Amino acid sequence: FGIYQDFGTKTCGGFPGSEFYMQTDAETFADWGVDYLKFDGCNSNLYDFPSGYEAMGFFLNKTGRSIFYSCEWPFYKIVSGLQVDFAKVRKTCNLWRNYYDVQDSWSSVLDIVNFWGSNSKIFTKYAGPGGWNDPDMIILGNFGLSYEEERVQMAMWAILAAPLIMSNDLRHIRSSSKALLLNRNLIAINQDKLGIQGILLQKQNGIQIWSRDLSFNRTAVAFLNENSDGMPRFLSFSLVDLKLTSSTYNFTEAFDMKTNILVTRQRPLKIKVNPHGINLYIAKEMHL
Amino acid sequence: FGIYQDFGTKTCGGFPGSEFYMQTDAETFADWGVDYLKFDGCNSNLYDFPSGYEAMGFFLNKTGRSIFYSCEWPFYKIVSGLQVDFAKVRKTCNLWRNYYDVQDSWSSVLDIVNFWGSNSKIFTKYAGPGGWNDPDMIILGNFGLSYEEERVQMAMWAILAAPLIMSNDLRHIRSSSKALLLNRNLIAINQDKLGIQGILLQKQNGIQIWSRDLSFNRTAVAFLNENSDGMPRFLSFSLVDLKLTSSTYNFTEAFDMKTNILVTRQRPLKIKVNPHGINLYIAKEMHL
Repeated sequence: FGIYQDFGTKTCGGFPGSEFYMQTDAETFADWGVDYLKFDGCNSNLYDFPSGYEAMGFFLNKTGRSIFYSCEWPFYKIVSGLQVDFAKVRKTCNLWRNYYDVQDSWSSVLDIVNFWGSNSKIFTKYAGPGGWNDPDMIILGNFGLSYEEERVQMAMWAILAAPLIMSNDLRHIRSSSKALLLNRNLIAINQDKLGIQGILLQKQNGIQIWSRDLSFNRTAVAFLNENSDGMPRFLSFSLVDLKLTSSTYNFTEAFDMKTNILVTRQRPLKIKVNPHGINLYIAKEMHL
Repeated sequence: FGIYQDFGTKTCGGFPGSEFYMQTDAETFADWGVDYLKFDGCNSNLYDFPSGYEAMGFFLNKTGRSIFYSCEWPFYKIVSGLQVDFAKVRKTCNLWRNYYDVQDSWSSVLDIVNFWGSNSKIFTKYAGPGGWNDPDMIILGNFGLSYEEERVQMAMWAILAAPLIMSNDLRHIRSSSKALLLNRNLIAINQDKLGIQGILLQKQNGIQIWSRDLSFNRTAVAFLNENSDGMPRFLSFSLVDLKLTSSTYNFTEAFDMKTNILVTRQRPLKIKVNPHGINLYIAKEMHL
């Protein structure tokens, strides 16, 4: 059972906020059996965030009820050009939004992915069990994404160790979208127990290469083609390109876990990537 | 059998162009049995277009073979901020491109639709049997459009009396896309014998209303929702909003021609339009 509230005097929608009533509200939420609090930041002073979000976290913990604490804190700071103390954010919140609300469109999903790629060094390392960066909700199953684009969101949210919170109408969901949302292989990458968030390795000619370290010495590697030219790209990458340092790897296609490709120092990975599409693999070192 | 060539010294891809060889090339195309010539405008002088494109048209006609003549002429002028003599374009060409190449993305399709909407008064009236404005190819069936967005392109190209030239890989086409491409009801609107191009009636809050006069006193009316908020809109329009002047109309949903809605002066049209989606109707006056 989740609830939405705001740190300021009013919510973004104009309803009463929690400022000056945080202890009362935390206790009320606990009484109501709330399990998840999304705490927005409209109608407030940005400079009050560190102490204010911390105070709400304190009051939530004091209730004795385990309530997941999702904070809008970094987003408002970042878009105002202010620095964020991510160490303190992580200490205070379980989840924190860093960028604009996702919209039901490819341009929005790609914009978020690009922001994550350009700012890896600023916030990636703070993700891990207990606290996570939040690129916002899963919009697949709605109106604005093609099937390829839906694959991109699901695979990238797995690479980014992002929460898989659906924002769609379950009464009207295409079977292809439902299958993506329920894909256990992607969810397993998303939920990998090490909780290490993936990073952008390189971006060239509209092809992004992302990498996420997984448990059992595996690495998830994604190739995202952001071009709109309608033509699949035939690409070749060496282990060096992918920052993989051993001599031999088995690449397993990660959506269905059926296709395996042997990649060595002499034998690059050759792939075909659809436009607005993504290929996702799990690379595992082989000892021959 | 169609062929691509360029008015200038070289094609956009750097191959030999037709400048100074137009008569020879026209005769060669006729010898080869060419039925359709797309004549591009790279590597040429924009001020030579009126006489140059006219000359190629003259040589094509002189071969005695019926060759459809598609000209890039207005596009290069418009994007350079120059005026176009559309009366002369229509006299010379069977089809003419006015704006940028379509890309395999929603933003591109919407950008073209918006350009057509804003510039209706400049070129719409020149469309009709024998010569047409060209918003570029149908990209549905590729990678970048959602199903709703594919419906938009097909319906809008019908409203715009645009050529339905597919640019996709027929070996890998989804059945839902194939059904849209083969939809006889949409093709019938597109090919209506009057050949009157539709116009934008109004645009408000991201909702565009388009109207196209059809044969037998019918009017095609489209409601395009360009918002990316993921939520269908519930809308209501009077006959006055739709510039329909009689008292009673039957609105037939135009994708399947099954649902009929009675709209009168007292009873507005109430519809639900998906984001990145379109509703298309054929309105027919009713005599009660």
